[in-house]
Parts: sequence; C-alpha cells; structure tokens
Amino acid sequence: MGIAQKLAAGQKQVAISEFFEKNKHFLGFDSLARSLITAVKESVDNSLDACEEARMLPTLKIQINKVDSKKDIIEMKTTDNGPGLPQKSVEKVFGQLLFGSRFHAIRQSRGQQGIGITGVVMYSQLTTGSPTHVRSKIATEPTASVVDIGLDTRKNKATKSNSGREIWEDENGELIEHGLEITCRMKAKYQRGRQSVWQYLRMTSIVNPHADITFIDPEGEVHHWPRVTERLPTKVESIKPHPRGIHLGQLQRMCNESKDSRMTVFLRGNFSGVSSRSAKELCEASEIDVKVKPKSLKPDQVRSLLEAMQGEKTIAGKPVKLLNPPTNCLSPIEEMLIKKGLSKTIDSRYIITMTRTPSVANGNPYQVEVGLIFGGSMAADKHVEVLRFANRVPLMYQQGGCLLTKAIEAVNWRQYGLEQAGGKGLPKGPAAILVHLASTNVQFTSEAKEALADNGEVMEEARKAIMEMGRGLKKHLQKKKKMAKTQEKFELINDILPAIAEKSAQILDRPIPELSGSITKIMSAVISETQTTWNKETKMTDVEIILFNYTSRARSYTILCTWPEKFGAILANNEMGGRKEATGVWAWKLATLAPGERITLNYSLDGLEKGDWTETDVFYRGTQEVIGATKMDEKFLEEIRQQEKALKEAGIEISETNDIESLEIEEPQDIEDNQFEQPTVEVPDGQQTLFGGGN
Amino acid sequence: MGIAQKLAAGQKQVAISEFFEKNKHFLGFDSLARSLITAVKESVDNSLDACEEARMLPTLKIQINKVDSKKDIIEMKTTDNGPGLPQKSVEKVFGQLLFGSRFHAIRQSRGQQGIGITGVVMYSQLTTGSPTHVRSKIATEPTASVVDIGLDTRKNKATKSNSGREIWEDENGELIEHGLEITCRMKAKYQRGRQSVWQYLRMTSIVNPHADITFIDPEGEVHHWPRVTERLPTKVESIKPHPRGIHLGQLQRMCNESKDSRMTVFLRGNFSGVSSRSAKELCEASEIDVKVKPKSLKPDQVRSLLEAMQGEKTIAGKPVKLLNPPTNCLSPIEEMLIKKGLSKTIDSRYIITMTRTPSVANGNPYQVEVGLIFGGSMAADKHVEVLRFANRVPLMYQQGGCLLTKAIEAVNWRQYGLEQAGGKGLPKGPAAILVHLASTNVQFTSEAKEALADNGEVMEEARKAIMEMGRGLKKHLQKKKKMAKTQEKFELINDILPAIAEKSAQILDRPIPELSGSITKIMSAVISETQTTWNKETKMTDVEIILFNYTSRARSYTILCTWPEKFGAILANNEMGGRKEATGVWAWKLATLAPGERITLNYSLDGLEKGDWTETDVFYRGTQEVIGATKMDEKFLEEIRQQEKALKEAGIEISETNDIESLEIEEPQDIEDNQFEQPTVEVPDGQQTLFGGGN
Repeated sequence: MGIAQKLAAGQKQVAISEFFEKNKHFLGFDSLARSLITAVKESVDNSLDACEEARMLPTLKIQINKVDSKKDIIEMKTTDNGPGLPQKSVEKVFGQLLFGSRFHAIRQSRGQQGIGITGVVMYSQLTTGSPTHVRSKIATEPTASVVDIGLDTRKNKATKSNSGREIWEDENGELIEHGLEITCRMKAKYQRGRQSVWQYLRMTSIVNPHADITFIDPEGEVHHWPRVTERLPTKVESIKPHPRGIHLGQLQRMCNESKDSRMTVFLRGNFSGVSSRSAKELCEASEIDVKVKPKSLKPDQVRSLLEAMQGEKTIAGKPVKLLNPPTNCLSPIEEMLIKKGLSKTIDSRYIITMTRTPSVANGNPYQVEVGLIFGGSMAADKHVEVLRFANRVPLMYQQGGCLLTKAIEAVNWRQYGLEQAGGKGLPKGPAAILVHLASTNVQFTSEAKEALADNGEVMEEARKAIMEMGRGLKKHLQKKKKMAKTQEKFELINDILPAIAEKSAQILDRPIPELSGSITKIMSAVISETQTTWNKETKMTDVEIILFNYTSRARSYTILCTWPEKFGAILANNEMGGRKEATGVWAWKLATLAPGERITLNYSLDGLEKGDWTETDVFYRGTQEVIGATKMDEKFLEEIRQQEKALKEAGIEISETNDIESLEIEEPQDIEDNQFEQPTVEVPDGQQTLFGGGN
Repeated sequence: MGIAQKLAAGQKQVAISEFFEKNKHFLGFDSLARSLITAVKESVDNSLDACEEARMLPTLKIQINKVDSKKDIIEMKTTDNGPGLPQKSVEKVFGQLLFGSRFHAIRQSRGQQGIGITGVVMYSQLTTGSPTHVRSKIATEPTASVVDIGLDTRKNKATKSNSGREIWEDENGELIEHGLEITCRMKAKYQRGRQSVWQYLRMTSIVNPHADITFIDPEGEVHHWPRVTERLPTKVESIKPHPRGIHLGQLQRMCNESKDSRMTVFLRGNFSGVSSRSAKELCEASEIDVKVKPKSLKPDQVRSLLEAMQGEKTIAGKPVKLLNPPTNCLSPIEEMLIKKGLSKTIDSRYIITMTRTPSVANGNPYQVEVGLIFGGSMAADKHVEVLRFANRVPLMYQQGGCLLTKAIEAVNWRQYGLEQAGGKGLPKGPAAILVHLASTNVQFTSEAKEALADNGEVMEEARKAIMEMGRGLKKHLQKKKKMAKTQEKFELINDILPAIAEKSAQILDRPIPELSGSITKIMSAVISETQTTWNKETKMTDVEIILFNYTSRARSYTILCTWPEKFGAILANNEMGGRKEATGVWAWKLATLAPGERITLNYSLDGLEKGDWTETDVFYRGTQEVIGATKMDEKFLEEIRQQEKALKEAGIEISETNDIESLEIEEPQDIEDNQFEQPTVEVPDGQQTLFGGGN
C-alpha cells in the first residue's frame, strides 16, 4: 500500500455532535465561568423567542445552585411561562443539534441556528454525565410532559429516559397553564462582576422591558427585574429572500427545487421586493421566457437571471427596479427604551440615543441603534464602557473582535470631545456607548454568538450612527463650556463691580452708584436655562425654560422644544399655547423681552415614566444668540419631516399623532431701535437658579 | 391546533452543509478579500500537513488569476508535490464536510476539523456556481485522476462530474510522480498589504522553512520563497488521551464502546501516561476490580474512575501518580528559526526568542514560543506589531479576540521599557512580538481558526514566556542606556579636559599637562564592546569583543559568551582557546589587564547562515563592573543545565554536542594592590570603535 492510501485509510466522517463536543468552546463553553453564562443565555434566549412568537408576555425564573463547590458542579434551573413544547418535539429540540424552526426563516430572532440549547444538554452530559430534565406544559393538554434528555454524540440523536406525564403546579398549588422548565447539572463556576449571570440578566431586562425576570443566585438571594411595559415588541414577520442578496448557488438550488410552472410565478412567489412588473422585467433582462419552468433553466440562464437581479443585466441601460425588502421583519429596541435603560443602569448627566432607519445589506434588512451617556459618576481616565447587543441579546464576550466595537474605534472621538490616543481605538472618558444591531441574519464570528463578523456595509452604518451621536455630544460639551464661561463672567461682574463701586464711593465719599444697568451692558447676552424634572405627585415630567435678557435692547424670540411625541408623550399644563412645528417639536412665540427682563415657560409631559425624558433640547428663532439654546436650523426640521416620510415608506409606524400643521410661524424680529433709555434694571431674583446655586 | 403545536410544526433538521453555507463567515468567508486568503490558507495548510505526514519536502505553487475584475471573480490554482489522494478519497475530502483523518488524532497538525477545503468548494459553488477541479496523482498509479467536485448542501454529499484519468506532466514534459492540484473560481478580491495572500504566504514560509513556496499574483509577478532547510519538522506521533484531561461523558463512552476484557488492559491501552502499575492503582483508588470488563461499569463506577484519574480519589491520601503525556506529538518552530524568520522579516537591532518546555492543559500537550524584536526602522509611536501563529499557521484576522494577543496585553510593559497606557493593553514602541502555540488541540474561537479561545493555563504559560522575554528587553535597554551614558561622559572628558588644560597652560604660560592618566581616573570604568557581523567571504559569523580598562588598577576577568550551539553552530578561529561551560556558553580566562590597556577577543561561528545570529550576550566574572557586559549569574548557568535536563526528559533532543565539561574555571581575582605607579597611559587608538564613531 502506498503512502497516499495509508494516509487516506485514516479518514472518516465525523458527526456534527462529535464536532461540537470537541469544539465546545465554539459554542461558548470555554472557561467554567463563561459556560454557566452561556447555558443561562441559551435558555433565556429560547424562552424570550418562544414567548415573542406566541405573543405572550414572558415571565422567567432562573435559579443557580451549587451542588458541589469543590468539584465546581452547578445546577441550573430555568422556568418560563411560554407556550411550551409538544412532547414529541422536546427530544429533538434538546437532543439534536441543528434542529429548530428559525434556521430558514428570514426575520429577527435571538436564536437562529438550532444549536444553543442542545449544546447545553451536551455540555452537561459531557462534564457531569447527567441528562437534562425537561418539563413542558402546553395549553391544549391537561398535564405536563417530563423527560430526561441526553445526547448520543456519535449519531446526533437524543437519548431519553424517565419520560412520563405529571401535574405541574406553581408554589401556590395553582395549575400551570403552559410553560417550560429545564434543569441540568454542569461543571461551571458562578462568579460576580462585569461578566456574570446577574449582569447578563440585567442587560437582558434593559432591552426586553416587556419581560419579568427573577434570578435566584447560589446564596439564595432573589434579584427581580419587573416588567416595565405591557407592550410586546413589534411582531416580526418572516420575509422571502431579496434578489439583491442571493448567491448563484442558492438561486440554482431554488430553481432546481421549484415546482412552479412559469418564471413569473416563481419570481413573485419566492422573493421579496419583486412585483408582477419587475418579475417580467427580470425575465426580459436575462432573456428568459416568462413561461418557462424554473426547473428547466440551464446554468447559463440562472447566471443571467442572477445578473439581472443584481442589476448587472439591464433593460435599455437601466437595472430592473426592485422594491426594498419589507422591514416588518425587524423589531428595534427604540430610542426611548434605550434611553430609559441606559439612564437606569448608569448614573449620568447626559444621554443621547439614535435609531437609524432600516437598511439592507446583501438582501438582509438590518437596523442600527446607538446610545451614549456621559458624565455622572463614571471614571474620566478609563476607556468608555461598551454595551453591545444583537437582536436584543446582550453580548458579553469577545468585545475586541466585534464589528460593533470596531465601529466605535473607527470614529475620531477627539473631534467630539473625548480623549483618544492616536485618533483611533476605544476613546477614554466618563461615557458608555451602546450599540444594537437588529437583523434578519446577524453574522456572528462563531456559534457562541458573542461578536459580530466584519461586514463593510453594517460597519459603515454603525459608524455613521455613532458619529451622528458624537456630534450631539460635541454640541452638548460646547454648550456646557459656554454656559460655564458665561457663569464665570457673570459671577466676576457681580462680585467685583459692586466691590469696586463701594470702595470708590467710600474713598470719594460719594453714594454707591446703581450698577445693574452696567452689569447688563457688560454681560451683553441672552441666556436660557432649562430644567426637566420628574414630578412625583403629578406623575408627569415638568419642563421649565427661563429666558433672561441681559442686553441693552429689547429682544423677540420664538422658542422651540423637543418632546418624545412618538413615544406617546402628551403636552400638558402648557399655558403659553404655541403650536406644533413637526413631530416632537413644539414652538412658542414669546412676547418682546425688555432689557433686564426675563420670561418663564412652563409645561408638563404626560404619558411618560420616571427616567424616560431627562433632557429637553431648546432651540430659538431670533437674531441675538441665546446662550443655553441652539439656533433653529430649519434644515433640522426638514430632516425630521424627511425621516418621518422615510419611516412611513418603510412601513414603520412611528407617529401616533396628527399630521404636522403646515402653518408657518411669522419669524420674529428684534426691536432694533433703542427705544429704551438706559433703564434701571434689577438683576433678577432668579439669578441663583440660573446656574443652579449662583455665587 | 394550539400555539405550541403550530410553532413546533415549523421545526426541522438542518444539514451541517446548509448550516455552514448560511454561516460561511464562521469558516472565514466574510469579506471578499478575506475569502481569498481563507481559500489559499485551507489549501496550503492541507498541502503542508500531507507532506509532513508523508515525510516529503513540500514544494507549493499558488496562482491567483482575475477572471472578471468587474464582478470580482477570481480563479485560484494550488499545486503541491505531496502524496496525492486516492481517486475514491477525493470526493469525500473535497465534497463532504467533517470528513478527514485528523479529527480524532491527538497530535499537532494544521488541519483538525475536516471542514476547511470542503468550505472552499462550497464557497466557490455558492458564489460562482462552478465546481472545483481536482487533479490527484499518487505514486502507485501511472496516471492522475481528475474530477470536478461540487456539494449537495442539503445532504452534505459530493456531486461529481467529468471524472477521468490523464497523464500529468510538469512544464518540462516530465511526468509528475505524485501531487495534488486544485482549481476553483470564487467571488473574491485580491488585495495587498498587511492582510493579503502575499503576507500569509510570507509568514507561512518563515515558520515552515522546509517548504518551497511560489506565488504568482494576478499581475503575473512571481514571488518565490525558497526552501531554507532540508530538515523536515520533527515527526509528530499521535498519542492517546491523557486521563487528566478527560471528561466524564467521554470516559462513559470509552467504557461503553470498549471490547477489552479487563480494566487494566483498557486503561493501559487507551490512555497515555498510564503504566501497568498506575492502571492497577486507578482501579484500587476507584474501588473497581481490575478484572472487570470496562463495558460493564455502572455510571457511579465510571464517575469514581474519573475522580481517581483526576486525583480526587486517592490511595492512602495520595493521588495516583501518572506520567505526563509524551510530547513527541508536538513540533515547535524552535528559537533559532523564529530568530531567523523575524530578523529576515523586519529590520531591527535587537532580537530575543524563547521556546518554553512543553506543558499539559486538560490532558493536551502544548508548547509556547515567543520572540521579540526591537529597534531598527520600526515606528516608536505606534502599537507594537503582533505576529500570531498556531501549529505553524499564521493567524491573520481577529487579533483583538485572540488569547495570544490578550497574553501580550496582560503584561505590564512599562516595567520592561515600553510605553503602555494604563499599564495594560498593547504596548507602544519600535517592536514586534511573535507568539506561537503548538498544541495537539488548538482551541480556536471559530472554524475559521483565526483566534485562540480563552484558556487560563495556556494564557498563563504564554504570559510567563512573554514576561521572561520582557526582562531580556529591559536588560538590553538598560545596557544600552548605560553605554550611552558612559559614552557621553567619555566624550565630555575627552572634549573638555584637553581644552581646559590647553587654556590654563596658555594663561599660566606653562606646558600643556599630560592628561590620559587623569582621564582614566575620571572614567573609572571597564568597558566592553561586542560586534557580531556576517562575513560574506568566509560565510561565517565573526564575533569581536574588546575590553578596555579605564581604571587606575590592573583588572583580571573571565569573559563568557553565548553561541547557538544547539542549532549546530561551531566555534572557529578561536585563537584565545578557553573552554565550554554549558551548552551554548564559552568561557575565556583573560590575562591581567593593566590600567589603560585593552584586549581583543576574536572568534567565528561556523555552520550558520546570514541573519541567524546577530547579537552575542557577553558575561564576565570579576569584581569590577564591566559596562557593556553582564555579571555572570551562576544561577543562569545552572538554569541552562536544568533546561537541558528537562528537555531531555521530555524526549526532545536539542544538543548536538558533547556533554558539558564539568571542569571548574578558577575564579579570577583583581590585583588589589596598587602595583602601578600612576602610569602614563595613552588613550587607546581603538576609542573610535568603542562607540562606533566617537568624536
């Protein structure tokens, strides 16, 4: 026998289960600490997905017990109130790798591969020899099914034992209507800190506010994250693949397996974004008869069809126009919830969030959401904290190798006011940055689903979102700096001028002169101060805007404020009236403000909860700069209107209010003539509130 | 039908090939540029593995052609002179995922999973619809077999077409004796730079100096990395699993599937490190009869056996003693080759390398090798370059998520003289750091094999190696600093003193005094200078060491030098004699050196190539410090001897020379009495060479 035959003799087929048993670290079972988090994660992801699909509000309980601390044996027990699994599905779902319902579905879901929970069963069996106990109750049956599931790794088949049926009651003796309970033992370590079960569940509750999560740790301590909203995430619909994102091999297979009688039926029925007209045009561009059977296409014809789909074959020089895929397959977290989650998690001064409109990469709809919080008690000399999420699942490991991290690192943060060595890498500063990718096909770097693989388009989209957020941070920091400078000037003037006046008067034996007019002149600024506070009694968010005219002329302004209209907030106690300028933008035309005068604008926001809205952006229309507010950029309003249009076109309903009134507000003018003869103006009493304390 | 049944109805089994087609990025097919590198890598890895197993010196040719630049279609053709594949193996190796010979073998190899090359076939088919053309010639058959291989992803089976046999000749019309040629077309992008096919092959040639690699790029340019050594890497042997690294599930399966008639036979035959005696002891500790059949063990007995294997069940309070697994399953690159590779790749001033002795983690033997180069033309204000290798394969992607990178980041580099913000993370400076892990079971984070997964033990071992290397760097930098200071002092004295003397003499109208004695007194130092240079004519490495006595006393020294004895270097032209103190350490006892005198030591190293040896470590024995050399730490010699012993015990043959002579060299003493009356000493002519130029 030659050497080639000798070497070939050793070759054999390996089962997928043997493969993953040897490479269990691909599934997230590398260290003992991570293995436990992975197990909890797979179970929780499954529960949340099942509840979402069944349109049920999830109530989860996760219990971790130390069975043998010396040998690092841990028991995990997770329970949900989801739809449960029919008895005959249990063994396949838990005991067979690559078995599941979500692999071929094009829609946003946490699980996609049919590997996760079987991996947990496999790891438990490998490390402790114990099967996983599953109890499942479905609504249409009176009792729950119970079974112990193991895995025959040589064959990728479940082994089952002790199967039966039993009555399942909760601790109060009430019958459980439906739900699933998993109990397994594994070699693992429970630990606290940044990478812990507790942290994973906490982050999960932030991005899944519709879930009620209870965690009982090995010490018996109960941690409870209650349900914050009764509103289930938007229902996601499965979509067909989009012609732009298809590969030749796939198209060949689809044609081969098709039973359709003609091309047009095939194209309209199997792809999203293909209308009756574009189906015909695709055939025309690829020179295929519309009546031909897809199954009978020759390889060259399939290639032509693909080129027509990807716009390389054209009609009269123009690519065939296709609709974008529908985006109701996505369910973003939404700005308001991100804001809420962030402000609850980390104490801070400033929050900005952003949900981009959905895009399409390689035929897969996706959407990027970002959030940034700044200030508060965070350390200024450390790298910013990165919070990564994919399809509402927190990512806890492999931060360095993740596309979302790279998107943050690819931004020049120095231009936005954060420290960053060499203009790249993670910035430093008292900030945390959140990035969420929602997609029908999240491309992870491995089965453990902890880091996103490189993808130019998604990277660019994330980078854009982050930069937009960065510009917001820069504005905030500039505003803060300007306010601080004005405050300093104001304090100096108010301290020193009176002292000089008094001293001079003493020396000259004259009366102390009246100074407020001079102070106004020296300040020469219009200042606004905004406070957004939660009112415990009324359960509303109160907004107060004060405008001070420290100039020697009368001033006239329109003040505009943002409010979270699209999240259902309603303006209340708005005694000054005004009108709506765009979704989420209200405007008040103020009466002329004489030198030294001030005016206060009060309103409340109803329909929000504490922490939902902590900062109000204030804009103005008028010639003299207002320190503490931003000059209204009319393009900004236009952008908001464009966004609304785009979202509507994308089929996403965001506005719960009426259409924007198109009435124009008359642009106010300053009273340029100096009508006021150097009036004696008192420094307003309110000066203490101006800078939150004063001198 | 209830909701649970409805949801379950959508569940189905997915084939491994469908799974990897959808998740092709797990295999390294994410971006178009990386896909090409992945394809080249999988093919080259297979060729090198096959040649190594067949004990043949590999000659590889890789050709990349642009088929259609607009559509990014590229053709890859790779040819090797390996053993080839028998006709009937071809379709399984290329058309079936998880088929291969290395999955169950415990030994160091590049490929392990049986996925790689089938992934290339799959990706080609998916993106271009084309099958992969394979030509294979084995030595025992007169003609080569040819076939076009595709993949039925629904079934994980090969589809083949155009199979046949043909005469395979090289370009000179000579019959090819054996070899394999792969031609495939795929959607991919050819690019240059740090992550490129060229760079991958270059790095591959560094760590596989026994390979001859030719690369023809799309422009037709030929890049050739010739074979540097005819010595094949150490032959690696497959070993049995070690009891310490076994999981309960595995042990259960092994017992179940065993046909052995008694426990002792089973234990000795299926595990490494188990002697006849320890097999009996394992049975004793786990209270299992030695005569029992492994197949008949009860679950509790298997558990007991595992606990005995892991030292938890003991005999008389002591765990059963097991031998370490043999390490002939590993094939490290070895220090000299790392040094050579590094110095060829990057121009630099200082190189240090280190091969740790093999260790065992979870029963898997592994070995860490590290290298560091410093200085030269590398940028001082950038992060150091990281060169990662696993089982002689360069890792090009996912640097941030790799254990090897994390090991570098976990070291406090500031203590070793490199800049590092916050004392962690990648250091900055003009340096490149190489880390190689050789292991029977390299745990990657994904199938693409680009980053190593976390593992506490391996991490610690790598960190230790890196820190050891860091200490070497520190010494080097301190030495450099001291030399620079001495130089500065020397130049100052030689500049200023004569000028002052001349001026004073002029003013006082006296003759200029003789200064060399005073200069010697002020310098008050013994200085050594070492030069290691390649002699083009003699093809030897010349070493010159000069010792200057700038003190007012006579000095007596033994000078010791390192040389790469274990890589076959031989001392030549060594006219001063001396003797060997340990492997790779030579010693010369010098004649007493009078004040102001100098002595030159010359020798050459034969058997090396250019770039092999660029720096000689010089040590001394003697009381007065020698600037430019290191006081001999006798512990260091002892360590070398210990290392030799350990390596020998581990079965690794490193020394090709005789045993160390145990003769002791008499410790030299300074002549303490001031025998010399303030001698008139001339500053030696050689002072210009002392600091490579001087003033």
